[in-house]
Amino acid sequence: METKNNKEIKSHQEIDFEAVFLDMRNLLNNNEYDQFREAFLDLHTYEQSEFFLTLNIGERESLYHFLSPKEVSDFFDSFELEPDEYEELFSEMDARYAAHVVGLMQYDNAVDILNELPKEMAATYLPLMNREDREEIRTLMNYEEDTAGGIMTTEFVSIDNEMTVRQAMEHLKKVAPNSETIYYLFVTDPTNKLAGIISLRDLIVAEDDAYIGDIMKERVISVRASDDQEEVANIVRDYDFLAVPVVDYQNHLVGIITADDIMDVIHEEAEEDYYKLAGMSEEGSPQAATALQSAKKRLPWLIGLTFMGMITATMLSTFEETLQKVAILGAFIPIIGGMAGNAGTQSLAVAVRGLSTGEIKNQSLVKLAVKDISTGMITGLVCGVLLFGIISILFGQPMLGVIVSISLFVAMTVATLSGTFIPMGMQRIGIDPAVASGPFITTSNDIISLVIYFSLANALMSALI
Amino acid sequence: METKNNKEIKSHQEIDFEAVFLDMRNLLNNNEYDQFREAFLDLHTYEQSEFFLTLNIGERESLYHFLSPKEVSDFFDSFELEPDEYEELFSEMDARYAAHVVGLMQYDNAVDILNELPKEMAATYLPLMNREDREEIRTLMNYEEDTAGGIMTTEFVSIDNEMTVRQAMEHLKKVAPNSETIYYLFVTDPTNKLAGIISLRDLIVAEDDAYIGDIMKERVISVRASDDQEEVANIVRDYDFLAVPVVDYQNHLVGIITADDIMDVIHEEAEEDYYKLAGMSEEGSPQAATALQSAKKRLPWLIGLTFMGMITATMLSTFEETLQKVAILGAFIPIIGGMAGNAGTQSLAVAVRGLSTGEIKNQSLVKLAVKDISTGMITGLVCGVLLFGIISILFGQPMLGVIVSISLFVAMTVATLSGTFIPMGMQRIGIDPAVASGPFITTSNDIISLVIYFSLANALMSALI
Repeated sequence: METKNNKEIKSHQEIDFEAVFLDMRNLLNNNEYDQFREAFLDLHTYEQSEFFLTLNIGERESLYHFLSPKEVSDFFDSFELEPDEYEELFSEMDARYAAHVVGLMQYDNAVDILNELPKEMAATYLPLMNREDREEIRTLMNYEEDTAGGIMTTEFVSIDNEMTVRQAMEHLKKVAPNSETIYYLFVTDPTNKLAGIISLRDLIVAEDDAYIGDIMKERVISVRASDDQEEVANIVRDYDFLAVPVVDYQNHLVGIITADDIMDVIHEEAEEDYYKLAGMSEEGSPQAATALQSAKKRLPWLIGLTFMGMITATMLSTFEETLQKVAILGAFIPIIGGMAGNAGTQSLAVAVRGLSTGEIKNQSLVKLAVKDISTGMITGLVCGVLLFGIISILFGQPMLGVIVSISLFVAMTVATLSGTFIPMGMQRIGIDPAVASGPFITTSNDIISLVIYFSLANALMSALI
Repeated sequence: METKNNKEIKSHQEIDFEAVFLDMRNLLNNNEYDQFREAFLDLHTYEQSEFFLTLNIGERESLYHFLSPKEVSDFFDSFELEPDEYEELFSEMDARYAAHVVGLMQYDNAVDILNELPKEMAATYLPLMNREDREEIRTLMNYEEDTAGGIMTTEFVSIDNEMTVRQAMEHLKKVAPNSETIYYLFVTDPTNKLAGIISLRDLIVAEDDAYIGDIMKERVISVRASDDQEEVANIVRDYDFLAVPVVDYQNHLVGIITADDIMDVIHEEAEEDYYKLAGMSEEGSPQAATALQSAKKRLPWLIGLTFMGMITATMLSTFEETLQKVAILGAFIPIIGGMAGNAGTQSLAVAVRGLSTGEIKNQSLVKLAVKDISTGMITGLVCGVLLFGIISILFGQPMLGVIVSISLFVAMTVATLSGTFIPMGMQRIGIDPAVASGPFITTSNDIISLVIYFSLANALMSALI
């Protein structure tokens, strides 16, 4: 058998990064300055950051000697670490070197890191930076983390509307190295108010002598610095933008947000909702976190749920007598509570996503309630009839089947309704619906459904014994 | 009090689209051809699509008379509808008009629509398109929907490496209108194999007389047409790309995937995992779906869960006698089953996300198991001790507290472990872990935890009566 020996570019999945990284570590440990630099700088910055994470402290220290602060800042732009990991990394560096690394990062990333470092570390680094970097970073640090201001950068290309296309292209060549994106040019008037926008695509196909003011788009979609990052993400995704300008309340252009940062926001916000639905906070990768770290993150939720579960248990204990008389009733506690929980969670998931994408905002409440009650009744009826059939056949007790089925029907209807309206109520009183309602809904559904069940059983007791 | 009267560009949230859309509908209904076209074409294509969705059938028919197929295709590129909605829309149009609308859309979007339309409709439209559009679309239709090939487009800019920068810019001006992105240029050799890549940014700062072959990046990250779209999304997000080239198995450049499509993939995949965790499929916006549509989507899951719940009920019924003797045991059924479910779901959520982002892939199984058992034991111990305290105080029965707490401890440990290993097992045998494990895990945890609870209660019965 012959083996093919075509040398060709490999697609991403086929590169054996483990082997590449191991070779590079050897170069680093053997102090092969030139060879290491060549191999390292040949990697994409994301790959550099992945390589960096495989190093131990001694190797990291060699790396800092081999690379300039600018070269380190380039791949630091690529990763997102936990606050204590940043603290550890920066403590390993000389303070001046560390300050330059942070100052040379993209400003939005530099700000994220400085906000996560202990106050005294950030205060040490700021005075050691170049004046311009320091000022830009200080300004950005004033914005709240989850707002447009908190994720924007000030490294954008702004031009004025009296330039010609040729002048704009010349200007672009000059500022390109220091801009996060050059694919949109933001046009401002003399007072720095946003006056228009032009894409590099439009600039390239335009005549060289045309004036920017004549070819720019005057209708610009912008966001306010105080807007929530999730709203901004929805706009960028809907409009398919590569970047969106951020303005203050007087319409001065203060920054831009680029598509790559929006991808991270979409990812983050979705993960957040996802983990909250599971009744927990995000806990980092399964690989990195230790058991104790995981337990610490999960416990607050679990302890809260234990207390809530005790409410159900206490309520159920009042039906001790009923249960003593007809013990078989106990066998259906999990299915009734569970199905109410399932129906409620489904309805909750739709409501939480609807609230976070803004789809539910303008919905008529009555219409929504009628819809939920109908959905609950249809699903409850189908599952109830099914359950009645199974119990009659399996247990030979049609009366028990009636009680369980009716309880299931009512419980699923109530649960479906509460799955929508509890998160909506939460949001109205200013609690993030995703946090509070998962566990809350399951417990309240448990209680309501089991009260219905045992009350019905009590009422029809004579038929059961 | 004076009111400010500055005329200024409004940020997105401040535009009253409802009022704008109403004015435009009036123009449309009064047959104000010029005024309507001016107002409509002034909107961003995403806004045009939002406006379009407010129209009734008569208004849509007027719109088709007012706009060219190209103008309609521009905003059709902006929306994602359900298959039956596309079918309805296209049936309203003249077949030739409809074929042109589809043919003039971005090819990746055109393919998505044609795949969702009934076969005979798609077969009618294809022969009515321009030959070039038809051929490109036919090729793309051969790829599976959720792969790189299924979301890529063929409208990219490719250049050859013997061009100078000036020639490349000239070429770019010509092809810009028909390319989905011009911000990356893909360099191919004479056999159309991918040889390098150059960003427009690098092209702009380069000398006019430089050769592409000398300044391009030869190390290109590409994906295979058969790669899963989620893997592609992870790569684009990690590397902060605006576009990534897609190659076939011989490294021929066959298409590109742009950042805006990746944003949709990230959003879609996260929503999918989210809804599956809630035990349901996505059902569209809460506004659009009727109760019957919602019920239809939720019922398959609920019916499955009913059957699973009956397994728990049947198992529990074997403990009827125990329950008759000590009825108070019934009061703690929901908390034990519920807490096991909660611990299992937390662990499941971490595992499912870890599997889908690929973080769990290379993890040692033994290490993962040890970690999960430890996490489960820590959380189980804390909650168990807490519960013991509450029961001893509230019910005055320490022995009952011991039984409930030990059951809780064991159940939470087992649940945490199964939350990781059941989805991993599912994936190994080729089932999407997100689908199968949510309900599956809850039921199996119910059964295991309640068997532990009642067996323990049976064993310690003498201490309870």
